[in-house]
Amino acid sequence: MKPVEDLIHALKQLPGIGKKTAQRLAFYLLKCPQEEADILTDAIIRARSELSPCPVCGFLDAANPCGFCSDEARDQTRICVVEDSLNVLMIEKSGAYRGLYHVLGGVIAPIRGVGPEVLNIESLMKRTKSNHLQEIILATSPTVEGMVTSRYLEKLLERESVEVTELAKGLSIGSDLEFADEVTLAMAIEGRKKLK
Amino acid sequence: MKPVEDLIHALKQLPGIGKKTAQRLAFYLLKCPQEEADILTDAIIRARSELSPCPVCGFLDAANPCGFCSDEARDQTRICVVEDSLNVLMIEKSGAYRGLYHVLGGVIAPIRGVGPEVLNIESLMKRTKSNHLQEIILATSPTVEGMVTSRYLEKLLERESVEVTELAKGLSIGSDLEFADEVTLAMAIEGRKKLK
Repeated sequence: MKPVEDLIHALKQLPGIGKKTAQRLAFYLLKCPQEEADILTDAIIRARSELSPCPVCGFLDAANPCGFCSDEARDQTRICVVEDSLNVLMIEKSGAYRGLYHVLGGVIAPIRGVGPEVLNIESLMKRTKSNHLQEIILATSPTVEGMVTSRYLEKLLERESVEVTELAKGLSIGSDLEFADEVTLAMAIEGRKKLK
Repeated sequence: MKPVEDLIHALKQLPGIGKKTAQRLAFYLLKCPQEEADILTDAIIRARSELSPCPVCGFLDAANPCGFCSDEARDQTRICVVEDSLNVLMIEKSGAYRGLYHVLGGVIAPIRGVGPEVLNIESLMKRTKSNHLQEIILATSPTVEGMVTSRYLEKLLERESVEVTELAKGLSIGSDLEFADEVTLAMAIEGRKKLK
């Protein structure tokens, strides 16, 4: 059973995949048609070899610089700062933003030994010197680490002439107020908007 | 972004992996060390090439016949019939069974076009002719399809001299009665055991 155990172990390393799921996936990968397993392994290998971080913003893309940085139709006066490339795709899907991005490649997490020096911050500071730039939107996750990172960047950008904003915190659309956690609820109250 | 989309699409084919999880896994596989991605793709490729269904019982194993079928220390008078190889590992972990296995390779599911003829049933019927055999334990899942399969096998085995049993249905150990579904609860009541 060694090859199965190795496969289960490898799958367990993936984020959010526990032992039960890893077992289920392993046996699926053993039973599915050869072609389907090939498509998956090829996709992993090819994506890794074809994509690399954009030298300007850090977004993982096949183009260099990336499709966002080289798209002159996008609003060049705004940079939205996010933790990783997946967040870029999610913001794009919202359809509410047409500016540029900057991918930090993580968040400050002293507990895991991640300091600001390993994040993509130096290149962000260089970009803030651009004359066109009017706004930097801090869009890290509202987790402890994401908020620490946001505060760190806020301080760094204090002396720059650019405007610094962050995403609104509040209730999720479609969620029942009953199930909102108290911190979110407090933020939703503090950030309440005047209607009239 | 084509390679990322291909990777997300390939991951979404896995059972229980939705779009959000596929995205998260894809970006993890892009960011993790090259070695970790290699270990996973190699494990998939190697497991598929080294394992094959046992010609006797259908269990996926590197040995032929499998480790269970060739182990003379196991109880040769009992065969436990399961849906797939993963179920074998789970029953082994329970420590409550030391007999042989028979892996059906699925369950009867007319809705998905799976009839009894594609399952590993013919070879089970051949094994029931063995003189040593005393008991066949039907251990398909208590799902609609699993129970239909169990009833089908029960009928097929009617004329054989071997004893046919099935796993007990009832409350899960450690679960609160409050959260048991009504069908399970009804089965737990019907199958109640006399204590004294």
